[in-house]
Amino acid sequence: MIQMKRKGLIVVVSGFSGTGKGTLMKALVAKYGNYALSVSATTRSPRPGEENGREYFFISDTEFEKMIAEDGLIEHAGYCKHYYGTPKKYVEEQIEQGKDVILEIEIQGALQIKEKFPEALLLFVMPPSVAELEKRLKGRGTETDEVIHERMLRAKAESEGIEKYDYIVINDQLDECVEQMNSIIDAAHYTPFRNRLFIEDIRGQLKQLS
Amino acid sequence: MIQMKRKGLIVVVSGFSGTGKGTLMKALVAKYGNYALSVSATTRSPRPGEENGREYFFISDTEFEKMIAEDGLIEHAGYCKHYYGTPKKYVEEQIEQGKDVILEIEIQGALQIKEKFPEALLLFVMPPSVAELEKRLKGRGTETDEVIHERMLRAKAESEGIEKYDYIVINDQLDECVEQMNSIIDAAHYTPFRNRLFIEDIRGQLKQLS
Repeated sequence: MIQMKRKGLIVVVSGFSGTGKGTLMKALVAKYGNYALSVSATTRSPRPGEENGREYFFISDTEFEKMIAEDGLIEHAGYCKHYYGTPKKYVEEQIEQGKDVILEIEIQGALQIKEKFPEALLLFVMPPSVAELEKRLKGRGTETDEVIHERMLRAKAESEGIEKYDYIVINDQLDECVEQMNSIIDAAHYTPFRNRLFIEDIRGQLKQLS
Repeated sequence: MIQMKRKGLIVVVSGFSGTGKGTLMKALVAKYGNYALSVSATTRSPRPGEENGREYFFISDTEFEKMIAEDGLIEHAGYCKHYYGTPKKYVEEQIEQGKDVILEIEIQGALQIKEKFPEALLLFVMPPSVAELEKRLKGRGTETDEVIHERMLRAKAESEGIEKYDYIVINDQLDECVEQMNSIIDAAHYTPFRNRLFIEDIRGQLKQLS
């Protein structure tokens, strides 16, 4: 019998700033044992409180360009004069071990990944309402009105890409949302196109009947 | 805020004879409160032990043809000189009440439903292996070798249509399988195309920003 779920899935998480993507992903990984969180590489400098290997792998331009040249990244993009990318090795190792690897990336990277790995699952985190989104962005108390307005405008632009995603995740109550995300990822293991080997195996055996 | 999950989904369950579809569906409906089981109408006679309204609605040819003429069925097919079909009224009522309605139908009916209701979810129940399928069919102890062989041949033909389904469900352990099915159906509520109103509402509000 060909086992199901032998391999993990790549799970890309995108969504508006202020929807609590980061908290959601951390809660998901903490609650269930079958997830691994991918850490991106960047050439920007660490901010106060950020740790190498936790928020990002902080590397030099030369190192980053070497990774690109050696096909060591599954996606990368330039943003505000810095590189950001997802190291391939960790993702592939975790998948082989059957872990579902969660990546937080924006839409450009998400679509790069879907092209290279059609089996990847794309999730888009949304707020329950626009009013709630604004409330959360303001509630942080750390951003100026201008920055909040900019984020809202970016949400407006990002909202155009939602249909490129396989699922939306509504972050209303964190606990419920974590369970919902887990259901969605678990379910994704059972699509026919992610189980070609299993289906072909069953079919091959049935074909021997006459 | 436009609520998610206001409406239920039509969930079509197909699969090889001997995979335990019926048991699985009954267990699902018994375990969770948000499902309703659709009962088909047929013109064939009840078998010993079958009850009108439980296994089927047993109706006459004239009644069945009247239902077809009045668009009272969401799908129907002829099989061994008898009609089989799904009454529309019950399905629509349950969906409006937010219940996910489970229908056991074969592939022709499943595809008719997908055409009329693109939001319907199509599940295909599979055995963990062909050996296990044969063992289960034999284990019933009520069928001749010839009937078992016929069912296996039908499985062979049916296996060609698996890719038309949204998900496969492997019935190995019943309890696990029921949970898996519930996850799959729950997750289906969160695809972008089943949440057009919600997404359009959020987008509409974001568009007012400038």
